[in-house]
Amino acid sequence: MIVVMKNGCTQQQMNAAIRIMEEGGVKVMVSRGSENTVLGAEGNAANIDRERLSLLPGVERVMRVSEPYKLANRKYHPDDTVIDLPGGASVGGGRLAVFAGPCSVESREQIVGVARAVQAAGACALRGGAFKPRTSPYAFQGMGTDGIRLLCEARAETGLPVVSEILSTEDLDLFEEHVDIIQVGARNMQNFDLLKHLGRVSKPILLKRGLSSTIEEWLMSAEYILAAGNPRVILCERGIRTFETYTRNTLDLSAVLAVKRQSHLPVLVDPSHACGHAWMVERMALAAAAAGADGLIVEVHNDPANALCDGQQSLTPEQFAALMAKLRPLAACVGKAV
Amino acid sequence: MIVVMKNGCTQQQMNAAIRIMEEGGVKVMVSRGSENTVLGAEGNAANIDRERLSLLPGVERVMRVSEPYKLANRKYHPDDTVIDLPGGASVGGGRLAVFAGPCSVESREQIVGVARAVQAAGACALRGGAFKPRTSPYAFQGMGTDGIRLLCEARAETGLPVVSEILSTEDLDLFEEHVDIIQVGARNMQNFDLLKHLGRVSKPILLKRGLSSTIEEWLMSAEYILAAGNPRVILCERGIRTFETYTRNTLDLSAVLAVKRQSHLPVLVDPSHACGHAWMVERMALAAAAAGADGLIVEVHNDPANALCDGQQSLTPEQFAALMAKLRPLAACVGKAV
Amino acid sequence: MIVVMKNGCTQQQMNAAIRIMEEGGVKVMVSRGSENTVLGAEGNAANIDRERLSLLPGVERVMRVSEPYKLANRKYHPDDTVIDLPGGASVGGGRLAVFAGPCSVESREQIVGVARAVQAAGACALRGGAFKPRTSPYAFQGMGTDGIRLLCEARAETGLPVVSEILSTEDLDLFEEHVDIIQVGARNMQNFDLLKHLGRVSKPILLKRGLSSTIEEWLMSAEYILAAGNPRVILCERGIRTFETYTRNTLDLSAVLAVKRQSHLPVLVDPSHACGHAWMVERMALAAAAAGADGLIVEVHNDPANALCDGQQSLTPEQFAALMAKLRPLAACVGKAV
Amino acid sequence: MIVVMKNGCTQQQMNAAIRIMEEGGVKVMVSRGSENTVLGAEGNAANIDRERLSLLPGVERVMRVSEPYKLANRKYHPDDTVIDLPGGASVGGGRLAVFAGPCSVESREQIVGVARAVQAAGACALRGGAFKPRTSPYAFQGMGTDGIRLLCEARAETGLPVVSEILSTEDLDLFEEHVDIIQVGARNMQNFDLLKHLGRVSKPILLKRGLSSTIEEWLMSAEYILAAGNPRVILCERGIRTFETYTRNTLDLSAVLAVKRQSHLPVLVDPSHACGHAWMVERMALAAAAAGADGLIVEVHNDPANALCDGQQSLTPEQFAALMAKLRPLAACVGKAV
Repeated sequence: MIVVMKNGCTQQQMNAAIRIMEEGGVKVMVSRGSENTVLGAEGNAANIDRERLSLLPGVERVMRVSEPYKLANRKYHPDDTVIDLPGGASVGGGRLAVFAGPCSVESREQIVGVARAVQAAGACALRGGAFKPRTSPYAFQGMGTDGIRLLCEARAETGLPVVSEILSTEDLDLFEEHVDIIQVGARNMQNFDLLKHLGRVSKPILLKRGLSSTIEEWLMSAEYILAAGNPRVILCERGIRTFETYTRNTLDLSAVLAVKRQSHLPVLVDPSHACGHAWMVERMALAAAAAGADGLIVEVHNDPANALCDGQQSLTPEQFAALMAKLRPLAACVGKAV
Repeated sequence: MIVVMKNGCTQQQMNAAIRIMEEGGVKVMVSRGSENTVLGAEGNAANIDRERLSLLPGVERVMRVSEPYKLANRKYHPDDTVIDLPGGASVGGGRLAVFAGPCSVESREQIVGVARAVQAAGACALRGGAFKPRTSPYAFQGMGTDGIRLLCEARAETGLPVVSEILSTEDLDLFEEHVDIIQVGARNMQNFDLLKHLGRVSKPILLKRGLSSTIEEWLMSAEYILAAGNPRVILCERGIRTFETYTRNTLDLSAVLAVKRQSHLPVLVDPSHACGHAWMVERMALAAAAAGADGLIVEVHNDPANALCDGQQSLTPEQFAALMAKLRPLAACVGKAV
Repeated sequence: MIVVMKNGCTQQQMNAAIRIMEEGGVKVMVSRGSENTVLGAEGNAANIDRERLSLLPGVERVMRVSEPYKLANRKYHPDDTVIDLPGGASVGGGRLAVFAGPCSVESREQIVGVARAVQAAGACALRGGAFKPRTSPYAFQGMGTDGIRLLCEARAETGLPVVSEILSTEDLDLFEEHVDIIQVGARNMQNFDLLKHLGRVSKPILLKRGLSSTIEEWLMSAEYILAAGNPRVILCERGIRTFETYTRNTLDLSAVLAVKRQSHLPVLVDPSHACGHAWMVERMALAAAAAGADGLIVEVHNDPANALCDGQQSLTPEQFAALMAKLRPLAACVGKAV
Repeated sequence: MIVVMKNGCTQQQMNAAIRIMEEGGVKVMVSRGSENTVLGAEGNAANIDRERLSLLPGVERVMRVSEPYKLANRKYHPDDTVIDLPGGASVGGGRLAVFAGPCSVESREQIVGVARAVQAAGACALRGGAFKPRTSPYAFQGMGTDGIRLLCEARAETGLPVVSEILSTEDLDLFEEHVDIIQVGARNMQNFDLLKHLGRVSKPILLKRGLSSTIEEWLMSAEYILAAGNPRVILCERGIRTFETYTRNTLDLSAVLAVKRQSHLPVLVDPSHACGHAWMVERMALAAAAAGADGLIVEVHNDPANALCDGQQSLTPEQFAALMAKLRPLAACVGKAV
C-alpha cells in the first residue's frame, strides 16, 4: 500500500498517517518527491484501515498495490483449475468445452430434441433456462420447476449434464438436487446473498460477468463463492454494456485474457447473449476460441422463429453443427481439443 | 408497432409478416418507401409476437412505438404520485424530501446521534445500512438484525422514519415489521425475484438505478413492483458507470428530468454514492434540487474518518446542516419547499 | 513516481529499475511489502523514462503520483483565471457568464434578431456557427465566411462579442481577425495540430470536452494551448457519451467540480448539446449554475422549427428570457451574479 | 421515414406533419394504433426536413428507416471493395493483409531493420509514425518530415508500401508524394476538414474508428472521403472506450462483423492499440482473424524497452514472426490466405 501525502502537508499530518499504518502492522518507508511525499507499507498491509487513512488531513490518495482477491488469484494458485463434469467432460485445461441449448426450456419435445442434436454435434453440457430473468414483468418468465424436470428428462435421455440459471435462494434445494452446473446470470453477479448461498452448495457455479462489471469486481464475486467454501467456479464473459447499440452488448474478448492472467479459474464465452444476432454467433465463437477461452456457451433452438425467448440470437441445430465442424480445426491451431 | 421489410423482399414474405400482425389483432397499413416497405399496426399491438416477426425472412427490423411500462407510465397516470411517510412527511409533489444518515449503522450512540443531528437540520427520514452489499467478501458486511434494532431505537428517539437496504428475501418479514422504507440497491435493481416479493409488502420501496441501467430498464424494474401490487415506489438516481474515473460514478441529472417526464413516480438523487467524494456532495445536492429532483438521500456520519464504510463520501453533521441551509433558498427558486 | 516490482523479482531486476530512476535524477526509497516491493522516487520524477521502466523484467507497474498538466494545474496557479471579453464582460471569478445564440448563422435577419433578443435577456456573448462539423457530408455545413461576416454585423449592431467554432487551420486568419472567442468543438478536442496553432493566436479559446475524454485528457488539451503561449482558455462541459440514449449525451456536472478543483481555468456548461431536447435545457442550466459552473452556453433560435441545424435543442428567445429570469435568483444562492 | 404522432394529437397537427412530408416529395400512409398514429413515407424520404418535422406540435418522434450512408453502403455496392497496394499486395477479398512496424520512426537503423524483419515474417506493408498525436504537449511528437524520409528509405530497401498517420492538412502534399497509405487516427475520425481534403488525394486512406464512435458515425466519416471522390477507404477497428480499465481500450471484434455486413469496405484490426499490452497482441490478432477481419496492423519494435512511444504494446520481431506462423493455419480455417 502506498499513501500519497498532499503537497505541503505538515509533519504532524504525516505522523498521523504513519501511526495508522503502523497500527495495521507494517513498517513505513518515507519517500520525499519534488511534489509529494509518499509513504510505503513494508509488510502485510491487509489490516490497515484504508478509508480512515484516506480521510486524514494531508493525505491525497491511498493506492492499493496488490489485488483484493486471494482465492481467485493466480499468484497463490498458479495452476489452472479444471472442473470435472458428470458424464466425463471437464472445463479448463487443454480442452474447449461447449455448452449448448435453448434460452428457455419450452416442452419435452423441444428440450430432448435439442439435447440430442447438440450432443451429436459435440456439446458436453445442455443449457436451458427454467427461471428466466426478464426485463419486463409481462414477458414469459420460464417454466419454473417443470422446466427443471424436463431438463432432467433430457439428461436421462442423453447423459449430458445440465446447466440452468438460478434466480432465487428459495430454489437452492431444487437446483442442488437436479442441476449439474448452477448459473448466476449477469444481473445477479453482485447479488451477494445468492453468492454466499452458492458457496455452500456442492455443484459447480457458472458465474456470468455483470453488464458493467470490471474484471476486479467479477473476480471479487467469484471470491464470495470461493470464500464460502465452493472451489468450483466457472467464469463466463457475455458482453458488456457500452455506447454501441448495433450489438446487444459488446463482447469483451480481451477480458478472457486478462482474467486468465489474473486468475486460475476457467473462462467460457457466451457469443449469443453478447451479440444478440444469430448471424454473428459462429464468427464470434471462433474468435473466442482463438483468444483462448476455455469453452463456449451457445444458444441453440430447434425452431428459433417460434422461440419464447431470445430467438433472434439462437442457432438452429444445423447451424450449431456447422459451427462445431469449424471449431475443431481452429481450436487445434491454438492447442485445444473440442 | 412498425415492421421494416428488407429492400427487395417478396410479396409472400410481406404477406407472412402481415399475417402474424393480423393474428395479433391489428389492422396493417403498408407504406412503400424508395428503399424499404414499412408495415404499420393499426390498433393495439401488445399481443403481436415481436420476436417471431423479427425472424421472418424479408423482415429487417421491428420497431416499438409505445413504451413497455404501463403502471409506471405518466401517459396513463398524469398526476405525480405522492408517497406519505410515517411522521407526516411525504415524497413527491411540491416538497423536497431529504433522507440522511450513515452508510452503515455502527452503534447505538452513532445512529441515535446522527439521527438527532439530521433531524435538527431538517431531514425527514433516517437512512442507515444494516445489511451491506460489499464488493469484497472480506469487508464489513453490516450489523445485520442488530443494525435494524438500532435503527428502531433511533426512530423511537426522534420519530424519523427509517430507510434501510434489503439484500435477501429471507429478511422480508424483518424489514416489513421494522423498516419504514425498504431500499433496493443498485446491484439488485434487476434481482427480479426480490422485486416480485417487494411488490407484495406494505411498505414504500426506494428503488435505486442500476450502475448501467437505461431509463427504460429502471422503469421496468419499478413496473415489477407495481405489477405485483405495491404502488409506492420511489426512484433514486445514484450515478451511472461511465469511462470517467475521477468520480466513483457519473451522476446523471438529466435522468431525473427524463424519468419525471415518462413516469409519475417521485425521484430522489443520491449525490454521495454518485460522486464518492464528500467535498462534491453539497454542490451536487444543490444541482439535483435545481434540476427538479423530488428529494435527496445524503450520507452523514458523526466521524467520517472512522466510519466502517464509505467514510470518504460522508458529510459531518455540521456540513449537512450547512447544506440544508443552502438548500432551502435554492429549492424555493424552483418552487420547492424543503 | 512509484514502481511496483513483481512478487519474486530478483535483486538484479530491482537494481536495474533503480538505475533507470536514478538516471532520471531522483533518489530511490525501497519499501518491501508482504507481496510486492515498491520503489519510490524522491525528487522530481519528470525526467524518468516511464515506458522503459515499465518494460523491465521484474516490474509490475509504474504509477504516477502527480498530474501531467502543469500550466493548467491549480497547484501552481491557485487563483482562478478570469478572462476579459470585449464589451466589458468576463468569464471566471464571481460572475456567471451566459453565451447564447443559434447553432448556425442562417441569415442577417436571424442572427441580428437573435443577438438583440439574447442581449436584452442578459447574455454577454453571441454564439453562432459558420463552419459546422456535421456527421453527414450531405448535411448543411454552415455558411462559412459569409456566416462570419454576418456575426460581425450582429456584433456591430449589439456590441456583443462573438463566439464561433473553427474547423480548419486554413481559417485561422479569418477567425483571429473577426471572432472574439474561438471555439474548439468536442470532435476536435484532440486535434493537436489545431490546438498548437490556437496556442499562437491572441484570442480566448473555448475548448469543449470530447465525447469520451477524461478530465485529465481534457486538461492536457488545454495544456497544448497554454504551452504554445495562449493563456486564455475557457473549458466547456457539453455531455459525454454513455450507454444511455434518452439524451443526446450525458451531462457530467460533477466534471465541473472536478475540473475547478484541479485547474484554475473557468468552466462553462452547454446544456443544449448535452441533452439534445429543448425542454430539458432550462432545468439543466439551473443545475449547472447550482453546481458552480462559471457560465453557460445556450442555443437560442428565433424559429427552432425551421432551424437548419439542431432545432430540437434550441430555445426560443422567450424561453431564453424565462431561463435568465430564473437563473438570476438561483445564481445568487450560490454567490454568483449573472 | 416514420413519424410517430403523440397520443391525442389533433387532426390539424397531423395535417401539418403530412404537409411537410408531402413537400419533401413522398406520399404519406396513415396507420392509427391504439396509442399512437403513425405516418409512413411512401417514396424517397431523403428530402424531407426531419428536424422541422420533429419539432411540430403533436409529433412525438421521427424515426429513420434507411441508413444515412450511401457510397459506403453494401446495399448499393454488394461486392467487397479490394484495394491494391504498390508491391502487389491488396486489402480486402480473400487475403489477410498484415501491416506491421513501430509506433514511431526513430532512426534509419530502426526503421530499416524493422522493415526487413516484418517483411521476412510476411507483412505486406510497413507502418511507422512520423507525426504523433500525443495526449501531452511535452511528449515526443515524432520526427516529422525526417520520419517520412526514413520511411521512404525503408521502402526503397524492402519494396514494402508505407503507412503513416497525417495530423495536419499542411502536410497533404508531403503525404501524397511519399506515403502509400495515409492513416487518419482515432482522434481525427471526425476531423471533417481533414476528411474532405483526403477525399481529393490519390492514395488509399486507413480510417481508424474513433474511441467512442458508433458504427454509423464511423461509416459516415468514410462517406466524407468517398463523397469527396476517393473510393479507396480501409477501415480499422482499434478498440473503443468503455468503463473497463484493465486494457487501454476494449477491442470490439463484433464491430468487424457489423461493418462488413453494412459496408463493402475492408476492415483491419489493430490489436496493439486496443489492448495496450504486448502479451495480449498475439491472441487478439488470432481472434481478429477468426472473426473475419481483412487484415491486421501490428506494432513491432526492435527494442520495445527503449521505444520512444508505446513500447508496452510493441512486439519484438521474433514475437511478430511467431504470431505470423500461428496466423497462417488459423486464417486458413476461415478461408483466408495470409
